[in-house]
Amino acid sequence: MALNGRVTLVGAGPGDPELLTRRAVARLRAAELVLYDALVDERILRFARRAQKFFVGKRAGRHAMTQEAINALMVRAARRGRRVVRLKGGDPFVFGRGGEEVLALQRAGIVCEVVPGISSAIAAPGAAGIPVTHRGVSTAFLVVSGHDEKSFADATAGLAPNRVTLVVLMGLGRASVIAWNLLNNCWSRGTPAAIVTDASTPAQKVWRGTLDDLAAERHVLDGVVVSAPGTIVVGDVVTVNVQAALDEAVACGS
Amino acid sequence: MALNGRVTLVGAGPGDPELLTRRAVARLRAAELVLYDALVDERILRFARRAQKFFVGKRAGRHAMTQEAINALMVRAARRGRRVVRLKGGDPFVFGRGGEEVLALQRAGIVCEVVPGISSAIAAPGAAGIPVTHRGVSTAFLVVSGHDEKSFADATAGLAPNRVTLVVLMGLGRASVIAWNLLNNCWSRGTPAAIVTDASTPAQKVWRGTLDDLAAERHVLDGVVVSAPGTIVVGDVVTVNVQAALDEAVACGS
Repeated sequence: MALNGRVTLVGAGPGDPELLTRRAVARLRAAELVLYDALVDERILRFARRAQKFFVGKRAGRHAMTQEAINALMVRAARRGRRVVRLKGGDPFVFGRGGEEVLALQRAGIVCEVVPGISSAIAAPGAAGIPVTHRGVSTAFLVVSGHDEKSFADATAGLAPNRVTLVVLMGLGRASVIAWNLLNNCWSRGTPAAIVTDASTPAQKVWRGTLDDLAAERHVLDGVVVSAPGTIVVGDVVTVNVQAALDEAVACGS
Repeated sequence: MALNGRVTLVGAGPGDPELLTRRAVARLRAAELVLYDALVDERILRFARRAQKFFVGKRAGRHAMTQEAINALMVRAARRGRRVVRLKGGDPFVFGRGGEEVLALQRAGIVCEVVPGISSAIAAPGAAGIPVTHRGVSTAFLVVSGHDEKSFADATAGLAPNRVTLVVLMGLGRASVIAWNLLNNCWSRGTPAAIVTDASTPAQKVWRGTLDDLAAERHVLDGVVVSAPGTIVVGDVVTVNVQAALDEAVACGS
């Protein structure tokens, strides 16, 4: 039924095309159809030379296409024998709805494969010189979506304050609410916090402050573009700061 | 002072050489000296054709080399103008002591760079068909080291039971203690749990059960090799199970 058609969900990583995996590049090169999201860098799409490319992500808060329409498009193309790549920012299983898409393909009897990608949850802090774990500072990190107030509150409510590193994806527009939520859960006002926008790309910017600063929206005053794709990191690892060493590397043309 | 010498910390990913990033491969190809850990697959080392290769990891519970000796070796080689790659399983900043090594290099005035890798924290569950997040099931995941009893207990103590996905790295030998710890913190006995060993390699194995099963060491009875590199996943996402679809893909020679 599926002929030679198949769908590969590919994690595009945080942005830098050099952070694609070898398998991601191979699948893009072989693709006949690529369906890509808003967070995928244009330089990454260039690997898919032979493919038709469709943007199916969100833009300015609107879905370009519903999830059902995306699923239907993948199924139809695979049934026609096409090699489809579903390209997602970061990793397909980290807030990427990858699981839902695989299940939809499975229900339709379509052969599929998942190629993991470098997640911004780890790589965005890392690109800013912030290790999500560091001996004597943090032996755990919680990755949470900041998109929805209730699910953020649910996931973090019981956390012992200041005990683990908190990495918030899709929360930049709600950073102040998130900070207040943590302060109300007894995290200390001076807890170090950072925001990394456009991680691993030439546009990367890093803001550093405290939970107090975030709550007071000081990051906005400081010019953080809250509509950019951004990662918030909260915890003492922010002050480990291996940035100086990495800056030197960049200066040397790494 | 550093001549052209430099050190690049490279994340080797979960095992499969196809999951190396493009930059990781470039750095390995250019390397003159590679210092690698126990979790690094031999097929990955082959990319470093020109390099001397030293194993500096743990084997059978013994350190082949102390952290201080590794740091000193990197500094000395870089000062002699050599291109050094420090190759680590997964991602250098996820329990990889990457931060410590960068700081040591920084103190010695050595130029360094960090290349992130695919972390087993996300990719090992993924390779078993388990998405760490899934809409309506889990909007957050906690990644924690299972190596040390106290730090595990500290990181998880306050967590609302069964609210987030728990991913435990380096905890396979202590799975039963970990399960008891969670049960004592009111996680339900039937909470789905899985163990993925040798993720993404031909030796990959997946065990599925419950917290109760882990506590009773049923996984050991079932033949899980607890000395293998393994990832424990606890939470309802374990039952999302997109495995069937992925198995089909494997059967088709993906």
